Amino acid sequence: MASSRPGEFALIERYFRPLADNAEALGLTDDAAVYRQRPGDDLVLTTDTVAAGIHFFADDPPDAIARKALRVNLSDLAAKGAQPYGYLLALALPANWTERWLGRFAAALAADQKTYGVTLVGGDTTRAKDGLSITITAIGRVPRGEMVLRSGAEPGDVIFVSGTIGDAALGLRVRQGKLHLPRGGKALVDRYLNPQPRVVLAPAVLRHASAAMDVSDGLVGDLGHICDVSGVGAEIHAPAVPLSTAARAALRADPKLMAPILNGGDDYEILATVPERVADAYLAEAADAGVPITRIGTILREKAPPVVRDGDGRTIRIAGSHAHF
Amino acid sequence: MASSRPGEFALIERYFRPLADNAEALGLTDDAAVYRQRPGDDLVLTTDTVAAGIHFFADDPPDAIARKALRVNLSDLAAKGAQPYGYLLALALPANWTERWLGRFAAALAADQKTYGVTLVGGDTTRAKDGLSITITAIGRVPRGEMVLRSGAEPGDVIFVSGTIGDAALGLRVRQGKLHLPRGGKALVDRYLNPQPRVVLAPAVLRHASAAMDVSDGLVGDLGHICDVSGVGAEIHAPAVPLSTAARAALRADPKLMAPILNGGDDYEILATVPERVADAYLAEAADAGVPITRIGTILREKAPPVVRDGDGRTIRIAGSHAHF
Repeated sequence: MASSRPGEFALIERYFRPLADNAEALGLTDDAAVYRQRPGDDLVLTTDTVAAGIHFFADDPPDAIARKALRVNLSDLAAKGAQPYGYLLALALPANWTERWLGRFAAALAADQKTYGVTLVGGDTTRAKDGLSITITAIGRVPRGEMVLRSGAEPGDVIFVSGTIGDAALGLRVRQGKLHLPRGGKALVDRYLNPQPRVVLAPAVLRHASAAMDVSDGLVGDLGHICDVSGVGAEIHAPAVPLSTAARAALRADPKLMAPILNGGDDYEILATVPERVADAYLAEAADAGVPITRIGTILREKAPPVVRDGDGRTIRIAGSHAHF
Repeated sequence: MASSRPGEFALIERYFRPLADNAEALGLTDDAAVYRQRPGDDLVLTTDTVAAGIHFFADDPPDAIARKALRVNLSDLAAKGAQPYGYLLALALPANWTERWLGRFAAALAADQKTYGVTLVGGDTTRAKDGLSITITAIGRVPRGEMVLRSGAEPGDVIFVSGTIGDAALGLRVRQGKLHLPRGGKALVDRYLNPQPRVVLAPAVLRHASAAMDVSDGLVGDLGHICDVSGVGAEIHAPAVPLSTAARAALRADPKLMAPILNGGDDYEILATVPERVADAYLAEAADAGVPITRIGTILREKAPPVVRDGDGRTIRIAGSHAHF
């Protein structure tokens, strides 16, 4: 952590040093962390920023903000088949921060470190002129040469997605007061606030997926990236896309919600393409890991954006994809 | 780079993909970068945020902003004895960005990549609700177990610093209109805008330094961190601290500038403690690398903040250290 106002050092000492429970973090007393290489491993590196007013609301609970900042990165690692190892935290704090806020923020990180087997290895704390912003760089490990790419999808591969899709996008609308649901709204908001990275699915992804990514910007758009870099097309069978009870009820009340469900983003589920011959093995290992996964479509030979079809085989048009940017 | 508005993808394609000229960056088409381990190396990881209104002025030239964002991180690596390898770029762009601005920003990164032998391996682009902010995570390599720490200083070690001290702090004051100099002001502002990380000094630091860090928050305060974690004290001989011609002239005109010179920060020079028996070797290797270094003091046995003495041995008090936070 690189700065010198006593306030910042006291702050690091009190809240962040306890998170650096790893010899390689050097107790955050140095300018850099060191990573001792493990033979046979590759390192996987990913970085994501979350900022007030863009990725979360400034008055979201500090523990939810901390979780989102860390988990969106862990989700990226899981989709690459990587096991999380550590993270660097760059925190830009607005002038109105309080110790209470920071204490809750750090406690949530501590809890997630236990849950996901990850440790703080370094970082930087600066003042934010405007809103709170957090950039986390996460470090994971995969066996040498085995990181799962976006670019490996092959014609005939089965498209799987974990969990349920669209909850966070609907939750955001509930949170904004744009969507009113008789029931289930709270669960949807919770999906928006607290992403659940599928870290435990990583070994099955590593073993079986030909390509994978996490669904952060919307199912259809993200599948489009896999198609693009793999040089293939894809067909999604819309009725097969797994929806929560709350999302299903919301969709019944307003069919136009199909677009934000299928392409709203913030799902942090794992989208994977799997060769047909190992599809059953992937299903079985996901079940063993306690993660529901669902077959939602097929990879096609001709390079094209994904096509979404309804139960009668008609194409459903999904309006422009969601983005934070 | 993780987001999906077509604008962002076009932007990544045009400006950032050419910077990812390394197989491990996967052409920025994936969610993460992969790092193939090299036998015998440790990885060194550091992260620093620079933000408009805090670390630079929003109307600073885009190339200067790009250089500062990257170089403050390369400076951290150099002080650890590490050779730079790659970096992840998390860029939060305010709504008023222009292609011209971004083109100049990327071109400056490209030039620095050549200069310092480093390559973009991944990142994230988001919208900034307020000002521009850039978090870079830099990755370097050192031989296994040899990263130079802050904690290794021993009593009797010689304290060396590279280059000249205080220029950037004075340059900031010139830039702010708080300091008017008959000559040399432009050179000082240049030191503020364009840090020169001492990457070429890293091998000598690695071979000879018992402890080292880069001077980012002020010479005296930063030396205080080495003392603190090494459990030692230190004495700086103020007249020995290397000053540029411009800084020397400014100090003659106003002796009160000693405080910002000795503790103003943004120097990005390497502060190293070196055992007396290898001090000459360190001097010789630094000279071979083309980096001037100067002996400015000695490490003392008793743990205490650094003491600064004038030419007559009297203690000089340096007011509270500088900080970005």
